[in-house]
Amino acid sequence: MIIVMKQAASEEDVEKVKSKAIEQGHEPLTIFGVERTVVAVSGKVIEDNRAIMRLLDNVHEVIPIGRPYKLASRSYKEENTQIKIKDLIIGGSELALIAGPDSAETKEQTLETAEAVVAAGGNGLRGGAFKPRTSPYSFQGLGEDGLKMLKEASDINNLPLFSEIMDTQHLSMMEKYVDVLQVGARNMQNFKLLEAVGESKLPVLLKRGMSATLEELLLASEYILARGNENVMLCERGIRTYETATRNTFDVNAIPFLKMNSHLPVIADPSHATGDSKLVEPVALAAIAAGADGLLIEIHPRPDEALCDGPQALVPTQLNELSKKVSSIAKVVGRTLN
Amino acid sequence: MIIVMKQAASEEDVEKVKSKAIEQGHEPLTIFGVERTVVAVSGKVIEDNRAIMRLLDNVHEVIPIGRPYKLASRSYKEENTQIKIKDLIIGGSELALIAGPDSAETKEQTLETAEAVVAAGGNGLRGGAFKPRTSPYSFQGLGEDGLKMLKEASDINNLPLFSEIMDTQHLSMMEKYVDVLQVGARNMQNFKLLEAVGESKLPVLLKRGMSATLEELLLASEYILARGNENVMLCERGIRTYETATRNTFDVNAIPFLKMNSHLPVIADPSHATGDSKLVEPVALAAIAAGADGLLIEIHPRPDEALCDGPQALVPTQLNELSKKVSSIAKVVGRTLN
Amino acid sequence: MIIVMKQAASEEDVEKVKSKAIEQGHEPLTIFGVERTVVAVSGKVIEDNRAIMRLLDNVHEVIPIGRPYKLASRSYKEENTQIKIKDLIIGGSELALIAGPDSAETKEQTLETAEAVVAAGGNGLRGGAFKPRTSPYSFQGLGEDGLKMLKEASDINNLPLFSEIMDTQHLSMMEKYVDVLQVGARNMQNFKLLEAVGESKLPVLLKRGMSATLEELLLASEYILARGNENVMLCERGIRTYETATRNTFDVNAIPFLKMNSHLPVIADPSHATGDSKLVEPVALAAIAAGADGLLIEIHPRPDEALCDGPQALVPTQLNELSKKVSSIAKVVGRTLN
Amino acid sequence: MIIVMKQAASEEDVEKVKSKAIEQGHEPLTIFGVERTVVAVSGKVIEDNRAIMRLLDNVHEVIPIGRPYKLASRSYKEENTQIKIKDLIIGGSELALIAGPDSAETKEQTLETAEAVVAAGGNGLRGGAFKPRTSPYSFQGLGEDGLKMLKEASDINNLPLFSEIMDTQHLSMMEKYVDVLQVGARNMQNFKLLEAVGESKLPVLLKRGMSATLEELLLASEYILARGNENVMLCERGIRTYETATRNTFDVNAIPFLKMNSHLPVIADPSHATGDSKLVEPVALAAIAAGADGLLIEIHPRPDEALCDGPQALVPTQLNELSKKVSSIAKVVGRTLN
Repeated sequence: MIIVMKQAASEEDVEKVKSKAIEQGHEPLTIFGVERTVVAVSGKVIEDNRAIMRLLDNVHEVIPIGRPYKLASRSYKEENTQIKIKDLIIGGSELALIAGPDSAETKEQTLETAEAVVAAGGNGLRGGAFKPRTSPYSFQGLGEDGLKMLKEASDINNLPLFSEIMDTQHLSMMEKYVDVLQVGARNMQNFKLLEAVGESKLPVLLKRGMSATLEELLLASEYILARGNENVMLCERGIRTYETATRNTFDVNAIPFLKMNSHLPVIADPSHATGDSKLVEPVALAAIAAGADGLLIEIHPRPDEALCDGPQALVPTQLNELSKKVSSIAKVVGRTLN
Repeated sequence: MIIVMKQAASEEDVEKVKSKAIEQGHEPLTIFGVERTVVAVSGKVIEDNRAIMRLLDNVHEVIPIGRPYKLASRSYKEENTQIKIKDLIIGGSELALIAGPDSAETKEQTLETAEAVVAAGGNGLRGGAFKPRTSPYSFQGLGEDGLKMLKEASDINNLPLFSEIMDTQHLSMMEKYVDVLQVGARNMQNFKLLEAVGESKLPVLLKRGMSATLEELLLASEYILARGNENVMLCERGIRTYETATRNTFDVNAIPFLKMNSHLPVIADPSHATGDSKLVEPVALAAIAAGADGLLIEIHPRPDEALCDGPQALVPTQLNELSKKVSSIAKVVGRTLN
Repeated sequence: MIIVMKQAASEEDVEKVKSKAIEQGHEPLTIFGVERTVVAVSGKVIEDNRAIMRLLDNVHEVIPIGRPYKLASRSYKEENTQIKIKDLIIGGSELALIAGPDSAETKEQTLETAEAVVAAGGNGLRGGAFKPRTSPYSFQGLGEDGLKMLKEASDINNLPLFSEIMDTQHLSMMEKYVDVLQVGARNMQNFKLLEAVGESKLPVLLKRGMSATLEELLLASEYILARGNENVMLCERGIRTYETATRNTFDVNAIPFLKMNSHLPVIADPSHATGDSKLVEPVALAAIAAGADGLLIEIHPRPDEALCDGPQALVPTQLNELSKKVSSIAKVVGRTLN
Repeated sequence: MIIVMKQAASEEDVEKVKSKAIEQGHEPLTIFGVERTVVAVSGKVIEDNRAIMRLLDNVHEVIPIGRPYKLASRSYKEENTQIKIKDLIIGGSELALIAGPDSAETKEQTLETAEAVVAAGGNGLRGGAFKPRTSPYSFQGLGEDGLKMLKEASDINNLPLFSEIMDTQHLSMMEKYVDVLQVGARNMQNFKLLEAVGESKLPVLLKRGMSATLEELLLASEYILARGNENVMLCERGIRTYETATRNTFDVNAIPFLKMNSHLPVIADPSHATGDSKLVEPVALAAIAAGADGLLIEIHPRPDEALCDGPQALVPTQLNELSKKVSSIAKVVGRTLN
């Protein structure tokens, strides 16, 4: 960190800053400039220690150096993390196309949907059983019954299953059914849940919070990595902005930024990012062109009968179309699909 | 809801919309306008049913009527909810001044702080034992040990204790120590936690999520109310915007908006809303002038030794000053403090 | 518009609403629902008239129907607007690749840059002479001298010239040099400037304001179209959000949304949208994959000598690379470049 | 500025940074830390020079020190700027209560309104003649005719007149009628307009842009101050956020932040900040409690006949009420009204 003193700072003020830095275990260096004195402390300094520096007399500003995440960073691990889930490897040259219903509704719907995923060349199945809903009066998912349906559809079609976990108490039950634990946007900073999935042997797909910065997303992944679970995928699913024309704003900048600063795979969710099936294809293609490692897509055989989020679901024929175009874009950016 | 048809809509399209509405249990009425046809459905319609309407052929737009929350609304309950916690009544004419440390650190610090609260005329004690921290490398709170310290300080000084719950598994343990369960901003849409505190007999202080709309805050309170816990306080603690000059943006509009549309008490937290002890007093006074039912204020006897959030903590003498001014503003808006 | 009455509304209240609608020149229709009465007014209603309705007794809500822009909308004009500027046609199957320096600095730099644009297969030259700078102490551009340099470079290389106009008083002077008048993000709601360029014979590139909604962007274009200038291009250049990892957040959703709802061409500016030359290529490819009609790219032969915005400038070899990849992506989405 | 080198930086890289700093006219100092090397440059460094540093080899980050505005800052001028306009002094102990119609509509309405301002104890008249409207189809103001009406009403009642200027070409005409030139939110970064009003002898009320940071607002004021016009008032009028329950989000934190960091007076506009007459009073009181130097309030004798923004206008009796309460709050914070 760099501690910038006020112009009014006395030598004694500077000494206090230096003592505090030494007390915190650091080696301070002082620069007496023409206008101001600056104390530099090299090495990682935790946020709590920086906060304290701001309180000392005649300190003008305390500026962090470097990034606060470590295990998730490219400088910690240079090569891409690749995550193997059944036959699917995420983070390598092959793209992931994970599709499925917003929610499991019936055995027939989940089966029919899983078959459509395979037919379109998809290699993963997504589906919700526990649904985080803004209103308590909305459909909340089928719970464990939904997981059973999803697991059956996933087994029959040999597709790894991605499903959301909403509470620490569900962990051991969820582990019986799913291949990847999804942490939803609303729980990105539910730290007890992050710690719990960090103890699991299953890979984790971590969605960016609705108003989380990329630094916060990486720090949330750090909670999981620090518990020993190295198989974390990051997911850009749109952020909340002032714009209301679309459900969320898909932050496409996030994809190359995350790939540059972290070794973790990055998945895009254009269904939630747009909230409108008509916008899903162009935004999905954009994500792949920008370097995403895969897509999470909602589909439904009959969106107008969906119990949740029908307006953003593609029908199977649209998924076929999308899959073909993704495959062509993939080649341009040095990737493959199928 | 109002279903606005596209200009191209046929009579058959309109019929389909009407049938779907009847299927959903509603009574649709049709208006054939000069340019467009509109189908109106009166009565409450859940979001999931509105979503389905948007998918029917030649539907242009589906517009909700009325508010999606019910139990939290003024139209459901006209008089202010008053919540009794030990000797403190929140939501009546007396204001709440709940102060304390960001985190319990030592027995001495919590005791000293609680005494300072009483001395300043405060009537509630706040303090964290489980801390939601952005980075896994930051101080995470003392856990149950912290709660013990806080309870002792609260008992000695006869101040009701407010503390944050971070996980459903902690509920029964927390209930042994605290008088009010606080749900933090990061957990405002941790719906399993909302359901759990909805089953508790303790009052709940629900903080607005960092990017939650007021409607979402009220729907989150609805999760708690719907489980039978009527003692919910809402808390405005600043929202995330593009502005970085302050830690958060305190949405003072929220206070009169919530008081107008809901019967629940509204508490303001100027410490987190500003992140800067120099801004706490003016923003606290603003909150009271705007109609808040109370304040949540962080204090520390020696902020430069605080383990967390020192820069936003007032020292005891500043709390005294604040308390006096709050008392004067209170009179102007028909309230009292002390 | 739909006027939703409060439950407490009397027949008299409803009558007043109907009279006001008639006074405004509309034909109101009333629906007496089980819970509420609703008055529907079909046809376009201007915002000012809707605002007045909200003030009548026992009116609960006034809901607009349809979109407030007309000339810019797809329903007004179904086919894509194509804009011919010298040999370049924007909005057809060929993509626009408009590149150049942030600012004209010297005759040599502008010439060298224009040659690099041609070499990379670009078909338009961008360059600033009047620079809107946040600080009065930053480089403000060379003014008319800069335009002269840019025009010379543009003429020699037969590239149409795009440059920003900052004030109504500059219009006739600017028209001597440029082929396209660019209205910058900070001036998107400088309505007098919009009216002025609406009177010009030159095409206009209208950048989205830093926090403008897509509806506001289209309404800003409506100011220009309404004055008779039909040659308007819209430009997505990133919006301001809470995220600080990148200079702006590129709203890629905006591209398909605008193409769907308007007939005007849509250009993407990944240089300002990211502020970081390392992110320009992936975001540029994303924009084309999402359906943009062209790109606006900042380049500089020696970014570390640039007087403004060097960190987001590509060097000529990077533009070559980008151009090749754009060309490949173009084919996948049914477009061409070169 | 502080230039933080990458860990991989060689001595030669560091030398290049130092040479560039010397070339820019600064005196660099180097600190060789355990992990990284840091080059510190004291004294003001303009943004353009910092940008260039970011481009040198193995530079990790360039961090500004100090604030980029100068003339507007408290450290440049310690005492409060007081602006005398007729009998009104803004920025002293007396508060400003500037009220009036959104727009001049008729001679009768402006006169009636001005009289209501005087009756309520107001000391300034606001009113629009040139209206920046999102849609070209909305009421655009009466132009110079409106100014004539407003001036007459202002003269008769001896109230200084505040009115918005929208274009540089209007300046000399506006100066004939108004006492204060208002620059609207949409023009806060219309730099040619800022320069023009900077040359005027009239005081300027500068509204914060819809998504402007406080630093940008102060830099916009710096454009005016740098041209020699020292009489600038800043105005907080709400910012654009994700929240849609109110028209804008009133950033009450801005008031104490601006007062602390600048010597310029700060006026609050709760009418635009809320967009709802029912919220104007509580938010106005909050602004005064937080330390604002005055209020800008929209009133209309008959809001349901207003040509623009009726829903946010108070009626004269409400202004009376507000004025009394402001007067009481004023005393608590050491100010007066009437």
